[in-house]
Amino acid sequence: MTTPLGAEIARTFGTPAVVVDLDVVEANVARVQGLCDAAGLANRPHVKTHKSPELAKLQVAAGAKGITCQKLGEAEAMADGGLDDILISYNLLGERNVGRLGALLKRARVTVAADSPVTVDGLRPAAAIAGRPLDVVVECDTGLKRAGVETPAEAVALAKRIAATPGLTFAGLLLYPPPDRWPETQGFLDTAAAGLAAEGLKPRIVSTGGSPNLKNLGALNGATEHRPGTYIFNDRMQMAAGVATLRDCAAHVYATVVSRAGPERGIVDAGSKTLTSDPGGLDGHGLILEHPDARIGALSEEHGFLDLRACAAKPAVGDVVRIVPNHVCVVVNMVDRLVAVRGATIVGEIPVVARGLSV
Amino acid sequence: MTTPLGAEIARTFGTPAVVVDLDVVEANVARVQGLCDAAGLANRPHVKTHKSPELAKLQVAAGAKGITCQKLGEAEAMADGGLDDILISYNLLGERNVGRLGALLKRARVTVAADSPVTVDGLRPAAAIAGRPLDVVVECDTGLKRAGVETPAEAVALAKRIAATPGLTFAGLLLYPPPDRWPETQGFLDTAAAGLAAEGLKPRIVSTGGSPNLKNLGALNGATEHRPGTYIFNDRMQMAAGVATLRDCAAHVYATVVSRAGPERGIVDAGSKTLTSDPGGLDGHGLILEHPDARIGALSEEHGFLDLRACAAKPAVGDVVRIVPNHVCVVVNMVDRLVAVRGATIVGEIPVVARGLSV
Repeated sequence: MTTPLGAEIARTFGTPAVVVDLDVVEANVARVQGLCDAAGLANRPHVKTHKSPELAKLQVAAGAKGITCQKLGEAEAMADGGLDDILISYNLLGERNVGRLGALLKRARVTVAADSPVTVDGLRPAAAIAGRPLDVVVECDTGLKRAGVETPAEAVALAKRIAATPGLTFAGLLLYPPPDRWPETQGFLDTAAAGLAAEGLKPRIVSTGGSPNLKNLGALNGATEHRPGTYIFNDRMQMAAGVATLRDCAAHVYATVVSRAGPERGIVDAGSKTLTSDPGGLDGHGLILEHPDARIGALSEEHGFLDLRACAAKPAVGDVVRIVPNHVCVVVNMVDRLVAVRGATIVGEIPVVARGLSV
Repeated sequence: MTTPLGAEIARTFGTPAVVVDLDVVEANVARVQGLCDAAGLANRPHVKTHKSPELAKLQVAAGAKGITCQKLGEAEAMADGGLDDILISYNLLGERNVGRLGALLKRARVTVAADSPVTVDGLRPAAAIAGRPLDVVVECDTGLKRAGVETPAEAVALAKRIAATPGLTFAGLLLYPPPDRWPETQGFLDTAAAGLAAEGLKPRIVSTGGSPNLKNLGALNGATEHRPGTYIFNDRMQMAAGVATLRDCAAHVYATVVSRAGPERGIVDAGSKTLTSDPGGLDGHGLILEHPDARIGALSEEHGFLDLRACAAKPAVGDVVRIVPNHVCVVVNMVDRLVAVRGATIVGEIPVVARGLSV
């Protein structure tokens, strides 16, 4: 069964197509902005999810204080698109990156993260190039074992080093708290804040991350801002994390059933080069709205293999189906444009300007 | 420890960078062409691995009979780049695809695959648009449960349908034999060939697929051509399949160590948006040449998380390392260009022209 919109998308753009409903996008943006406002936190959305200046501007227009980028290339694309007040939550290393950072700092407000003396020491030329100081936050790990110093003492030592480096300004702390371990994060933060105070340092920014942490907004005493990313589109991971429902999922992969070679199996034209192999900790590689009992059990590059054993009504060859991806951020990064709809109407295309800008 | 080439690549292109050694590429192309020649099989390399007309031409210049594409967009890009004799090993459905196929057929020799009557019947307008007949092969599944009819009887029935459809020509059979079950494939093929003969049909093409099947070249009586893809670059999967060694791996992801927040762990700047989450059935997400005992145990979008417990010599922040990816085909599809080297010398860039052309 193909919806009229599915048929129109296949006819106009072909499949697979990544389609976003702007009505849902706007509702998501407004809802999370409201949550941040209510919690007294600045909202600094992470653009890695959409990689689109157009959508970043929509977030800023709704009240976001600035944006977060993971890579320098994303930040440059956002500055090109007119965005300002950009936090790059990444250790930038090497003369090429630091040179680019300096050039970016000349034309935009930029804050960067660091979790080691090597990073901090290397950042110094950026300020010289820009002719103005560079804000640096200390990235702290409070349990997820991502980037970030592991102890409050290390955080304080790195903050001191930043403050002592000409051209750099200690701006605060960057955290990605484990969603289920906020008390530990509070302990880390309190100890670090006390240590900083003893050194005469005060974190202007205490930034927390993650759409899954939206349910914990306001729980961390001392936090000043939050960096949600996925909330603009949502996906199966956010549903599993309990911060979104199916209605909040703005992005769907439209795919065509291209094979039904066996009675209990089928194939769609979205494989690992569209849905990606990122499992997101979930079973199957996406949820097919028309056939929720179908399991996308495996992927090859351009094929998604459907196990239809549990399906009462099975799809036919030629059907266009809608798939809620497991992890939308990596799916959006596979395509050069998103198809924009409102309800059942195609309203345009959104270029994924920063697609693939991992450098 | 960073090699001089690693330092130069980081300085010139930044990391992560996907770097291919053209000396190794040329050796791989020559070796596999020799294997096909020795087995009396035409070589029809699959371009999904490199998505580059430039590299496809190199394969043709070395003796390949034509090329294989998985998607229409790839085939269009290859025809734009001057390639001809293109097999699209995919069920193409829908008026948009069939219209494009007709336009492509007007300017290039094209063969397409089908595994259902719906696909076959839908292809008819392509020949009318092109003003010449379209060659169609029947895709057969002999055990991997990918696309393809499951029985010789179905193959014969579909061949008859193709032959009976105005504008379409039955061209043969397309197979991807399970690498460890060639006798079953032989049985399928023999039965199908007998059935076709009884109908007065003869498969001009019997095409087998897969770089892992290079070790089985010549094993299938009746095969006329092979479609290897990954062999041009190779990767950890091909090593695991026993058809390549580390010396045959032409593509490396150059990445920078950006964090060493714990004594037994580290982070490189290549995450799932570079290495992809495709595990390829292997442990870890790539092999670090400088630290083969490091395990890339997990990925976030722009971070590769290293477990360094088994490493005697651990990498330092700022080191540039080389990673052999698990599955190179999906990695190449993440970037817009490859950095080309010969040994320790950068010789240019190769645009990944068909990157992301999944439609």
